[in-house]
This record gives sequence, structure tokens and C-alpha cells, in this order.
Amino acid sequence: MPRHTARRVAEIQPFHVMELLRRARELEALGRDIIHMEVGEPDFPTPAPMVEAATRFLATGEVHYTAALGLPGLREAIARHYHDRFGVDVAPERIVVTPGASGALMLALALTTDPGDEWLLPDPGYPSNRHLVRSFEGVARALPVDAASRFHPTPAQVAEAWAPRTRGLVVATPSNPTGTLLAPHELAALRETVSTRGGTLIVDEIYQGLSYGVEASTALAAMDDAFVVNSFSKYFGMTGWRLGWLVAPPDAVRDLEKLAQHFFISPSTPAQQAALAAFAPATREILEARRHEFAARRDALLPALRELGFVVAAEPQGAFYIYADISKLAADSAEFAHRLIKEAGVAATPGLDFGDNAPRRHLRIAYTTRRERLMEAVERMRRVL
Amino acid sequence: MPRHTARRVAEIQPFHVMELLRRARELEALGRDIIHMEVGEPDFPTPAPMVEAATRFLATGEVHYTAALGLPGLREAIARHYHDRFGVDVAPERIVVTPGASGALMLALALTTDPGDEWLLPDPGYPSNRHLVRSFEGVARALPVDAASRFHPTPAQVAEAWAPRTRGLVVATPSNPTGTLLAPHELAALRETVSTRGGTLIVDEIYQGLSYGVEASTALAAMDDAFVVNSFSKYFGMTGWRLGWLVAPPDAVRDLEKLAQHFFISPSTPAQQAALAAFAPATREILEARRHEFAARRDALLPALRELGFVVAAEPQGAFYIYADISKLAADSAEFAHRLIKEAGVAATPGLDFGDNAPRRHLRIAYTTRRERLMEAVERMRRVL
Repeated sequence: MPRHTARRVAEIQPFHVMELLRRARELEALGRDIIHMEVGEPDFPTPAPMVEAATRFLATGEVHYTAALGLPGLREAIARHYHDRFGVDVAPERIVVTPGASGALMLALALTTDPGDEWLLPDPGYPSNRHLVRSFEGVARALPVDAASRFHPTPAQVAEAWAPRTRGLVVATPSNPTGTLLAPHELAALRETVSTRGGTLIVDEIYQGLSYGVEASTALAAMDDAFVVNSFSKYFGMTGWRLGWLVAPPDAVRDLEKLAQHFFISPSTPAQQAALAAFAPATREILEARRHEFAARRDALLPALRELGFVVAAEPQGAFYIYADISKLAADSAEFAHRLIKEAGVAATPGLDFGDNAPRRHLRIAYTTRRERLMEAVERMRRVL
Repeated sequence: MPRHTARRVAEIQPFHVMELLRRARELEALGRDIIHMEVGEPDFPTPAPMVEAATRFLATGEVHYTAALGLPGLREAIARHYHDRFGVDVAPERIVVTPGASGALMLALALTTDPGDEWLLPDPGYPSNRHLVRSFEGVARALPVDAASRFHPTPAQVAEAWAPRTRGLVVATPSNPTGTLLAPHELAALRETVSTRGGTLIVDEIYQGLSYGVEASTALAAMDDAFVVNSFSKYFGMTGWRLGWLVAPPDAVRDLEKLAQHFFISPSTPAQQAALAAFAPATREILEARRHEFAARRDALLPALRELGFVVAAEPQGAFYIYADISKLAADSAEFAHRLIKEAGVAATPGLDFGDNAPRRHLRIAYTTRRERLMEAVERMRRVL
């Protein structure tokens, strides 16, 4: 008898970009030079003060479990960070340290979502969000968003989509794949729409700190009933360490703790030790220099892409992505991406991974490689187009 | 309006031992000496060759995501380990590296379990197993087991409990909390019972390698249709690193990969780098010395406990646990555990955490502390009892 596969599995998509990446690796194995603009992680190493903190700790060898909610000292350091950077008081008791932001979102969804409960999610959006909703037997309802609302849902749209089984709304600021931010007053309006309906707001602030020409902010300044997902991966340069956190409403923490015990036992101890140095002035200096470099890359790349015929109607102000409309250049972004790899040696991510809302018309271009390489990519694309 | 909490949350229990642990910490803060025999992790540091491997890697700072299934080199090293240690050929492609064994079990359950699907699990057993079944909307059916079958389910018991919605059986060898092993022929018989019913077998080999007076073995020697969960935490001394693996039937890997992408992105990179040194001869030597120390602890502790009136009818041959019947000493293991902490300064885990099968009559005693301390604990208990 064949093994039973759960129904959710057929509805969960892999990262389509992986196939493209395989193609890129094949070409590289043949000696071709590929410029990687499909990658969703900083090209910078983990800052030295954090590596040194982990290394000093590892020298003891005593790498044991921590509390399920994370090291008390790290939870306090994160709380201080909210105070120092955003002027917001968050009790350390509300902070749950998790294995990456994925772990934080899993906890929030497992806590709140019964089978058949619906979550509203912007489309395009980070694919795992809807797949994690599905994993816990929830239903992900896409809110199609476009440049007109800078790729964020509007309160009117949320109100219209609200249904009896709607549990809440997930938004991301800055957004992956669009790099656009929600202004504090927009977020407050969304929260009002959600909470008057008895719903829950989940705010993905994974790319917090990576914003250009606009002050970084946090949903926590305006609300304490939302679940706020964050990460040490992007701004703090810790992707491979797998560490994130969740700020939860105070009355949710006890239940999150028991879920965390069973899902994870505890977050990675070496990663937590490294993260203890994430907020030190020396680290901050390194991270801010990187932020300026990302800004310079965006400033160089964005006009060059526009000149080539990529349409970017909503100014990307955060993360390290440009979500471009390619309809002036090609009919299908997936085919276009394959053509770019083959003919120009440039890898980028077709819209397909981010939802069902005009994915064939969009390409996500990441500026996670050196400026010279980005300009070289532009040159190569110019020759092909 | 109050926030909606998913129904699963009420049915998922926290680790009850945490409350006991809090009590222990309070007493320690008052200057009391507590001997910790409630702890489910080795008291040894991570072996130096593994720490050194991670440290060398960290010096590069390049701590990026790996493939979702893990570093190819680590998957190959695990495959070689099966060959070298157990004489079993396992294709590296079947190995999924995960954030701890919890991550491995999550993947296997998310892959196979639709809402309402039932899994049979021995009771007593590791609590997270049934809570993870519940997390993915499955139903955990307890198979009460006792010393007569060395705390493992029998084929007759499985056959009798099998129902239309039964998806499969989870067994653990060595078992937590009982330290008992399944003999290869017993495991083969269970697999036969499960597979003739179209079910799936999940074998938890998290404590593999920690066995005393009996050869370590693997389910993979006899079957390639089971999901085998393993861990770097226990034998390899890597608890805080959070790294485990799943060996899956070949046709399940593609689906597991996409689940792993969304659940975890990838396992911890520093942990994987450390694990690359887990199978080196120098590491093996350290680990085998520790195994002998665990055996010596068991050999000293077990008769001493029996002399005190603890009844251990099924010889524990693995892990680092003794699951003792305390009915000659007290009426309720939870109260008894609190009394032991308070009066003897000895912490152990009441049966409550391991299920509903006579938990008040059992106490799990871990020999995860030095032999002198174990003997001191026995002395202190002798004075109290």
C-alpha cells in the first residue's frame, strides 16, 4: 500500500527559485560567471563582535539547552534595543526567542489558528507565510496588492475581505519581495480595522533596520495586542545561525512557551550567545555602514533598471529587493529569468514564488552583491535586451 | 474582544518538570545544594574536535543559509556513519538534516498526518511526540506499556488498537523515559504489523549509541519504508546546538524538502559545521569514553535505588534514564518529587510528563551528573526515606 501523504502537502509549493538556482550552478560548473541577484540574504559576513562572542562562549564547550523562551539576558537585550532604538518599552517577558523568524511565525500561527480559520495575506508576499498558515490547517486568503498602495493592503480591502472565519491579517514592513514600508499611521489604521473585528494582527518586521531615506519604526510603538515577528538574519547578518524572535501580547506568552518546548526545546545556544553582542555599539557601527552600502546599491541599481525598461512604480525603501514589472521587456517573468541566466549570466527571482497576483509580470531583483557586480549585471542585461 | 486561541493549545501540556525546576532554582538561590537528576541532557561539554570545527568555520564569518536538506557533506557523513557503524547502506539523498530531532518529527508528521488521522504512541513516552501529533491536527492514541513488554508496544497491542483512521505507530529505542531498547526482531515484527495495515512506522533513535551491555542497532538495517528520527544532541553531546536528522523513504524526500524550506529555511550552519567532526575517530574516542561512564553510573545507581525501594522491573539498557516504580515509597510521584527536592535536595522528574499510564507511580531519574553526586543523592534519599 502506498504511504498516505497529508492533503496539505499538495497545496504547499516549493521555492520555485531553487530550480533556477540549480540551472545557475550547472552553468557555473561549466565555467560561466553568474551574478546572483536572486539571493535573499546579505552578502556580508556576521559582524566580528558577534562571531567573537560566540567563539568565546564555544571555548567553554558547555553548549546546553537554554530556557524554551530564550536566554533571559538576550530577552532583556532585545527589550533594551526597542527602548534605545525606537523609544518603545517592551517587557522582556513578552519576547520569545525562536529558531529564525520562521519559528516565530509557526508559534503565532499554531497558537491562534484552528482548522479552517482564515488569515488575510498580501499577495505578492513571502511564500512561507501562506504555507505555514496551511501547515496548521488554516486557510490563507490572498489580498492582491499593487504599486497603487505600495504593495500593502488597505483597511478598505481588509474590511471587504473579512469573513466569519477570518482570524486576522499578516503584513510585512519592509515587505519581501517589494521592499516597501508601511507608514506608522497606515499600520495603525490596519490594526484598527482588524481589532474592531476581533481579529489578530501579525506584523513581520524581519527586515527592520534595513530602510533607506525613511526612519525604521516598529508596530510595538502603537499597539501591544499584535504579534510582531523579527529576525537576527537580515539587518544583523545572522542568516545561517537561525535566530529570530516574537514579541507577543503578554497573555499569550505562557501558551507560546509550551508550544516552543515541543516544537524546538530551545533556540540555538551559540546563536543566542552571538546575538548578545548584536546591540553593542561596535556592532551597530558595522551594521549601519552596511545599511549605507545597501542604500548606495539601491540608488545605483534602481535608475539603471528603470532605464532598461523595468518598471518600478512603488519606490522600494527597505529590505534589499526591487520588485520590477517586466511587461515592457517580456511576456513571462519565469521565461525571462531563464533567458537572463542563460544569455546574461544574471540570476533573479520570478514573481511565481510570491503568489498568484500577476507573478508572470514581475521579477524580484536583490541587491545582495557588490555594487560593481550589480552594474556589471545591468551592462550584461543591456546587451541582451 | 479576546484573542482566539486554537483548540490544540488547551490539549497541549507544558513540561511539568519545569515547575519543579523553578522550585529547585529557588532553593539554590537560598544556598541549598540540589543534585539534578531531572535533566534530559548529557552533563558533558560538546567534544573538543566538534567545537574546534565550528570555531574554525566561524572565523570566516561567512555564516549563510545552507540547502534546506542540509550540507551535502554532512548528509554524506551521516550516510557513511550508518555504513561504518551499523553496516547499513543509506543513500545520502534520504537524509534530511533538521533543527533537532523535534524538527525531524515535525517534518514527518506534517508530511503524513491529515486532521483526525491517528498515531499510536507508547505511554509512557516522550511528551512532545504526542503534542506534535496534536499540533498538526492528528490524534495521539496512547498504547499503555509496562515492564512486562519492557515498556514497548507489542504487535498484538498495535493490531488491536488499529482503527480506520490510524496512520501509523511511533516507537522509541532506546526509550525516553524508560531507557529500554527494542530488539531488532521486535522492531521487525512491529513494522510488519504496521505495514500490512498500510501504515507508517516512525522510529525515534535519538538515544542511539547510548546503550550498555547491548549492541546499538538501527531500524534502517531491516526496513527502508520507515521514518527514522535521530539527533546530534545525546550521544554526540550537542544539545544546545539544535541539530538532528531524519532518514526518510526515498520517495518522501522531495516533499520533505519543501516543508523544510518553509518551516526552517535551513538547519543551523555552525551546528552543521560542528557535526562534520562528529564521526572523526578522535571524537568517537571521547564519545565512547562517555558511554562507558554512563554505563558505570547506571551500574552504580540502579542497585542502590533498588535497595532504597525503587522498583525497576525492566532493565534500562540505554539513554541515561531509570524509570522507577515508587509505589513502595510514596502514593504520588509528583508529591514525592517535591518532597525529595525539599528534604533531600534531589531533583527527579515525576511520571506526569510522560503520559497518563500510571504516572503517579513513576519517577524518571536521569544519571546525567557525576557518579559521586549520584551516590550522594542516594545517601540523601536514604536519610529521608
